[in-house]
Amino acid sequence: MNVAVVGAGYWGPNLARNFRASADWELAAICDLDLERAQQVADRVGGVPVTASLDEILADDAIDAIAIATPARTHHPIVMAALAAGKHVTVEKPLADTVEHGTEMVRSAQERGLVLMADHTYCYTPAVLKIRELVAAGELGDILFIDSVRINLGLIQPDVDVFWDLAPHDLSIIDFILPGGISADGVSAQGADPLGTGKSCIGYLTMPLRGGAIAHVHVNWLSPTKIRQMVIGGTKRTLVWDDLNPQQRVSVYDRGVDLAEQSRATASDARAATISYRLGDTWAPALPEVEALSNMTSEFAAAIREKRQSRTDGASGLRVLSVLESASASLATGGATHPVLGTNGTDRS
Amino acid sequence: MNVAVVGAGYWGPNLARNFRASADWELAAICDLDLERAQQVADRVGGVPVTASLDEILADDAIDAIAIATPARTHHPIVMAALAAGKHVTVEKPLADTVEHGTEMVRSAQERGLVLMADHTYCYTPAVLKIRELVAAGELGDILFIDSVRINLGLIQPDVDVFWDLAPHDLSIIDFILPGGISADGVSAQGADPLGTGKSCIGYLTMPLRGGAIAHVHVNWLSPTKIRQMVIGGTKRTLVWDDLNPQQRVSVYDRGVDLAEQSRATASDARAATISYRLGDTWAPALPEVEALSNMTSEFAAAIREKRQSRTDGASGLRVLSVLESASASLATGGATHPVLGTNGTDRS
Amino acid sequence: MNVAVVGAGYWGPNLARNFRASADWELAAICDLDLERAQQVADRVGGVPVTASLDEILADDAIDAIAIATPARTHHPIVMAALAAGKHVTVEKPLADTVEHGTEMVRSAQERGLVLMADHTYCYTPAVLKIRELVAAGELGDILFIDSVRINLGLIQPDVDVFWDLAPHDLSIIDFILPGGISADGVSAQGADPLGTGKSCIGYLTMPLRGGAIAHVHVNWLSPTKIRQMVIGGTKRTLVWDDLNPQQRVSVYDRGVDLAEQSRATASDARAATISYRLGDTWAPALPEVEALSNMTSEFAAAIREKRQSRTDGASGLRVLSVLESASASLATGGATHPVLGTNGTDRS
Amino acid sequence: MNVAVVGAGYWGPNLARNFRASADWELAAICDLDLERAQQVADRVGGVPVTASLDEILADDAIDAIAIATPARTHHPIVMAALAAGKHVTVEKPLADTVEHGTEMVRSAQERGLVLMADHTYCYTPAVLKIRELVAAGELGDILFIDSVRINLGLIQPDVDVFWDLAPHDLSIIDFILPGGISADGVSAQGADPLGTGKSCIGYLTMPLRGGAIAHVHVNWLSPTKIRQMVIGGTKRTLVWDDLNPQQRVSVYDRGVDLAEQSRATASDARAATISYRLGDTWAPALPEVEALSNMTSEFAAAIREKRQSRTDGASGLRVLSVLESASASLATGGATHPVLGTNGTDRS
Repeated sequence: MNVAVVGAGYWGPNLARNFRASADWELAAICDLDLERAQQVADRVGGVPVTASLDEILADDAIDAIAIATPARTHHPIVMAALAAGKHVTVEKPLADTVEHGTEMVRSAQERGLVLMADHTYCYTPAVLKIRELVAAGELGDILFIDSVRINLGLIQPDVDVFWDLAPHDLSIIDFILPGGISADGVSAQGADPLGTGKSCIGYLTMPLRGGAIAHVHVNWLSPTKIRQMVIGGTKRTLVWDDLNPQQRVSVYDRGVDLAEQSRATASDARAATISYRLGDTWAPALPEVEALSNMTSEFAAAIREKRQSRTDGASGLRVLSVLESASASLATGGATHPVLGTNGTDRS
Repeated sequence: MNVAVVGAGYWGPNLARNFRASADWELAAICDLDLERAQQVADRVGGVPVTASLDEILADDAIDAIAIATPARTHHPIVMAALAAGKHVTVEKPLADTVEHGTEMVRSAQERGLVLMADHTYCYTPAVLKIRELVAAGELGDILFIDSVRINLGLIQPDVDVFWDLAPHDLSIIDFILPGGISADGVSAQGADPLGTGKSCIGYLTMPLRGGAIAHVHVNWLSPTKIRQMVIGGTKRTLVWDDLNPQQRVSVYDRGVDLAEQSRATASDARAATISYRLGDTWAPALPEVEALSNMTSEFAAAIREKRQSRTDGASGLRVLSVLESASASLATGGATHPVLGTNGTDRS
Repeated sequence: MNVAVVGAGYWGPNLARNFRASADWELAAICDLDLERAQQVADRVGGVPVTASLDEILADDAIDAIAIATPARTHHPIVMAALAAGKHVTVEKPLADTVEHGTEMVRSAQERGLVLMADHTYCYTPAVLKIRELVAAGELGDILFIDSVRINLGLIQPDVDVFWDLAPHDLSIIDFILPGGISADGVSAQGADPLGTGKSCIGYLTMPLRGGAIAHVHVNWLSPTKIRQMVIGGTKRTLVWDDLNPQQRVSVYDRGVDLAEQSRATASDARAATISYRLGDTWAPALPEVEALSNMTSEFAAAIREKRQSRTDGASGLRVLSVLESASASLATGGATHPVLGTNGTDRS
Repeated sequence: MNVAVVGAGYWGPNLARNFRASADWELAAICDLDLERAQQVADRVGGVPVTASLDEILADDAIDAIAIATPARTHHPIVMAALAAGKHVTVEKPLADTVEHGTEMVRSAQERGLVLMADHTYCYTPAVLKIRELVAAGELGDILFIDSVRINLGLIQPDVDVFWDLAPHDLSIIDFILPGGISADGVSAQGADPLGTGKSCIGYLTMPLRGGAIAHVHVNWLSPTKIRQMVIGGTKRTLVWDDLNPQQRVSVYDRGVDLAEQSRATASDARAATISYRLGDTWAPALPEVEALSNMTSEFAAAIREKRQSRTDGASGLRVLSVLESASASLATGGATHPVLGTNGTDRS
C-alpha cells in the first residue's frame, strides 16, 4: 500500500522514516506547503517525491492512505477532504480542534468504510502495550486509581495551553489501557499561569471514573526536573510505569490494601477492621526494544487490510478530545466539574 | 522549665524522649488515661512520674508547659483547660477538629499571653528549615507553584480521611515556607474511595495562591510506591525536596523559564517570543543531622522565654485547619472551589 | 538460657537490646571494664546487673553463654577463657586477630562440644538470608562472579586498615551464600593510603574462586557517595543486592549470556558463535522486616539447643580471617596473589 | 580541509555524519573494502564519493586528512601509509595493536610534522571536558583515587578480551583528566572467564599512580545491570560522574577527609587524631548538549590549523596502549604488578 505524509514539520520526518522502513508500506510522497522543508525530509529518507499540493496527493489513485502531521486546527479540513477522496487516514494528536469537528470526521470515516486512526504514538510503545495486556488479563484486578505526571521544562506553545499540549498523551494512554476506553462521569481542571503568558503553564486534571475509581493528570511546563510516571492502582496489584527509567520502566507490585469481601455490605467501622495489607513481590516484565511509530504503521496497515477499527481509532481520539474540551470548560469556570459528553463518539449524534 | 507530656500513644513517646534529652526542659510528668501505657513510656526515658489525671498536672504550679499528643477531637478541651491553668501549650497536628475550636484556642492564648504552638514537626526538619531560609532570602524569586506528593501504602484511619491524616504535613510545610503563611483564594478538593471504606483514601487538593501561583497536594493511602516530594518553582530558581533521598534531599535548580520584563504589557504573541530558558547549575546544600523534634522543643522554650509567638504558632495551625475544613466542604460539593476563611486566625473575629 | 554481654562500647548495646527482647534468652549481665558505660547500657534495657569482672561472669554457673563485643585483639583470650569455663560463645567479627588464634579457638570449641559462633550480623539480614536461599535452590545456576562494593566516608580506624574494618562484612556474606563457604585459590589485595595515614584507606581484594569464578571486593573510607552493592552473576540468573534501596533491595535478573552446552568442548571461535543473550524479566522478592541481630540471637540459641554448628560458625569466621590475613600478606608484597590457607579451619592442623 | 573516512563498519558512519556536519571539514570520500557498505554510509549522509581503494585516497592531493575506523590490527599499516602520504590522521581507539606499532606511528608523525590524533571520543563529551577543566583548575585538589566502573551485558568480542574492548574508554579518560596524563608505577590486572569463552569477560585493573594515589577500573561483559560511573577523589573535593544519569551526570561533593597539614610529619597515631570530616554542599554543573564526535572533529581541525598536538594526541593513545599491554602481561602472570613502560611515548626510544 502507498502512503503520503502530509506535513514536514516536527513530527512528519518521524512518520516518513518509519513508513519508509516499514514492510507494509511504500512511502509515495511527502507534502508540505513549504516545498523546501518537504525536500529536506525526502532527502533524509532517500529519494521520495515531494509536492506542495494536497490536491495532487488526493487525486492520485495510487495512494491508499495519508498520514497527517499538521497543526491541529487544520486536521478537520484535511481529513474531511482525504476521506472524501477515499483515502484511509492516520492523524497526529489531538484528533481535531473541537469535538464537533472530530465527530464529523469519525462519522464520515464510518459512512465511507475507511480507517480513521488517531496517531496516539505512546500507545504503541512496548511499555504501554504491555500495560494494556496486563490490565486486560486482569492482572491488576479492578482499576482503583490512575495517577499520571508529565512535567519538565517545556516550550511554552504559542497557540495551546499545557493541557492541550501534553495531556493528550496521558489521556490517550489512559483510554488505551482502560477496557472500553475512558468512561468518565466528569472532569475538573485547574491551571495556573504564574508568568502571565496568557495560558495555563501548569495543569491538574481530575476525572472520576465510573465505578468509584479516579484518574488524575499533572502536566507542567515549568518544572526543572523531568518526571514521566504513571501509577495504576488495582484491587489485585499496582503498576508503576516510569518512562525515564530504561532499566525498569514497568514494575508490578503485588502489594496493596485488601478489603475482606464480606465487609463491603457492613458498616464502615467494620470495614476498617477487615482491611489488611499485602506486601508481596515486585515484578518487572522484559520489554522488547521496538520504536513505537513502527508498531503504529503496522497497526494502520493491519486495520486497513482486515477492514477493522485500529486500536487507537477515531472514537478513541474523540474521547480524548471530549475530555480536553470539557477540561477547558471546567478551567473557564474555576475548576467546577464538567460533564464529559459522549465518551463514545459514535453515540454522540 | 518543666513540661508534662499528655498522651502516651503513637507520638507521645517521641515527645517524651526529646523533652527528656533537651537542655531547655525538665520532663516533669507523663499523663495518660491508660496508666500502664504512660508507665511504659516513662520507663523508656528513665524514671519520670506518671499520672492518669490531667487535673493533677494542671494544678501543679511547678509545671510551666504541656505537650499534647492526644486525638484531634480532644485538643480543644485539653488546650482550653491548660491555658486556663496558665500553662504554655504545644499541640500535635491538626490544631483542633474544627476552625471554630481552633479560633477559640488561639484567642484564649492571646488573651492570656501564653504560647500556643502547633507541633508541625516537619517544619523543624533541617530540610524544611533550609527551604524556608532560601525562600525568605529570595533565592527562588517569587513563588510560581508548589507541588507536593505524599503517597504510600498507609493505614486507613478509622476516624479521618486521607486529607485530614496526611495533608496537614504538606499544608503546614507550605504555610511555613511561604512568607506570611498560606494566603489562598480558595481551595478545591477531589477524593476517591474506590475500596468503599466510607472515606477518601486518595486525595487531590488545589489551592490558587494570591498573585497567580498555585499549590497542589496529592495524598494517597493506596500507593505501593512511597513518594514524598515537593517541587517549589520560583521566578529565579526551582527547588526540589525529595525526603526519601538521604544523599540529596534538597536540590536547587538554576533552571527555568525567563520572561523578559517588558513583554508583560504586550500581546500574548509577543510574550511567547520573549520567553527563554535558563539551564544553569544544580546545587544541593548540606543539611545538618538534627532530629526535628529536638528543634521543636528548643523553639517552644525560646518562644516562652522571649515572650513571642513560635514559628509554628496557633495562627499557622489555624490556617492549616481552615484549608482542611474548606477542603472537606469542597469535597462534599463535588470539588467546587471553596473560600478559605481567614487565613490569619487573629483576623477572624 | 542466660547470656552475658561482654563489651559495652559501640556494638554491645545492640547485643544487649536484642538479647533482652529475645524469647530464647535471659540477659543475665553486662560486663565492661568501664563500669559506668556498662551501667548506661543496662539502664537503657531496664535493670540488668553489671560487672567489671569477666571472671565473675565466667564463674557464674547460671550463665550459659556469652556474647563478645570487645576489640579484635582481645577476642582470643576472652573466648579461650569462656570456652574453658564451659560457656557457649558468639563473638563479633573478625573472629580473632590472627588465623593462629582463630584456629585455636575453633579447635577448643570443638573439643569441648561448645558452640562458637561468629557474629556475622549481615548474614542474618532478610536480604542475605534470601540470597543464600536462592543460591542454594539453584535459582542463579553456577556462580560466575561476585562483585561487592562497600564505600562511604568512613572513620579512619586507629588500629586497623580499611580491609580489616570493612571487608569482613563482604567476606562473611560471600562465605555465607556460597554453598560450602569460600573456597579460594588465592587472594590478591591492593590498597592505597593517599592521605598518608599509615594504613590503607582504599582497598581492592580479588579472589579467584574454584571453578573459574571470581570474587572482588572494593572497600573505601574516602568516598563521599555511599554505595553498598553486591552483584552475583550466575549461569542462569544474576542477582543485584542494593542495600541502600529499601524499596527494592534484591533484584533477580533473568538476563545473561547463554553459552550453548555442546560448544564447551570445541574451539574458542566456535564458542563465540554460540553465545546468545537472554533478556528476561526482573523479579524483586518481598523481604520481611526483621532486625538481623534478632535472627542472630535465635540462631545462637537454636545451635546450642540442637547441639549443632551455627550457620556462621567458627569455621566460617576462620575462613574470613584466612582471607584477611592473606590479603594483608598480598598487600605487603605489592599485590601478588597469596594462597589462602585452609578454607576449612578444622583441616588446618 | 578535506577528510576521508576509512572503514564503514560500526563507527565509520558516526565519523561520516559528524565530518559531514562540521563547518571545518569537507567529507571527501568514504573508503571500505566492502564497497556496498561504503555506499550505504555515503547515501545516509548524502552523495559522498566511495572507493574500495585506500591507495586512491592516499594518492589524492586534495585530501588533507583521514579518519580511520578499522579493526585495531590494521591501524599500523594504514596509519603508516597515510603519514607517508602526508596525511593528518585520527584513529579509533586503541591507537594500535601493540606498543611497538604505536611507538612507530607516533615517531613517524613527529618526524613528518603531521597530526596523529587518537579518537578517544569519550574525552570530548561535555562531562569529561568539564571534569578535565575542574581538575586543571585545582577544584578537587590533589587526586587521591580514581575508581571507574563500566559494566553491562556486552557482546563477547571474537578477537579481544574485555580489557581491550572496554578499558580503553576508562584509561583514555583517566589520561585526559590527569594533568600530564597517566603516570603509573605499574599495573596489575585480574580477569575471569567463567563461561570458558577463551578470554576474560570480567576484568579488574589496578594502577598505583605516582604520589600515592590509585586508579582502579572494573570492566565486565556479564552484568545485567549497566553501570558507567567514575569517582574521582581529591584532597579538596570529590567528583562523581554517573554517565547514565542525564539529569545530573557530574556531581562535585564538598565532602571528604581533612588531614591537618602539620600532622603529616608526625607519627601515625597523631595523624589519626587530626583527621576530620567536611560535610559541605553538592554542586552539579550544567553541561552543554553537544555530541562528542562534533567536538572531536573540531579539535582535529584546530590541531592541524594551529600546528599543535591535539588534546588526545598519539602520545596519549600510546600511554593507554602501554597500560593495556602491561595489563595483559600482568594477567598472564596471575595478576602480579607489571611496570608500565614509557608513559610518554616519545621517551621510549
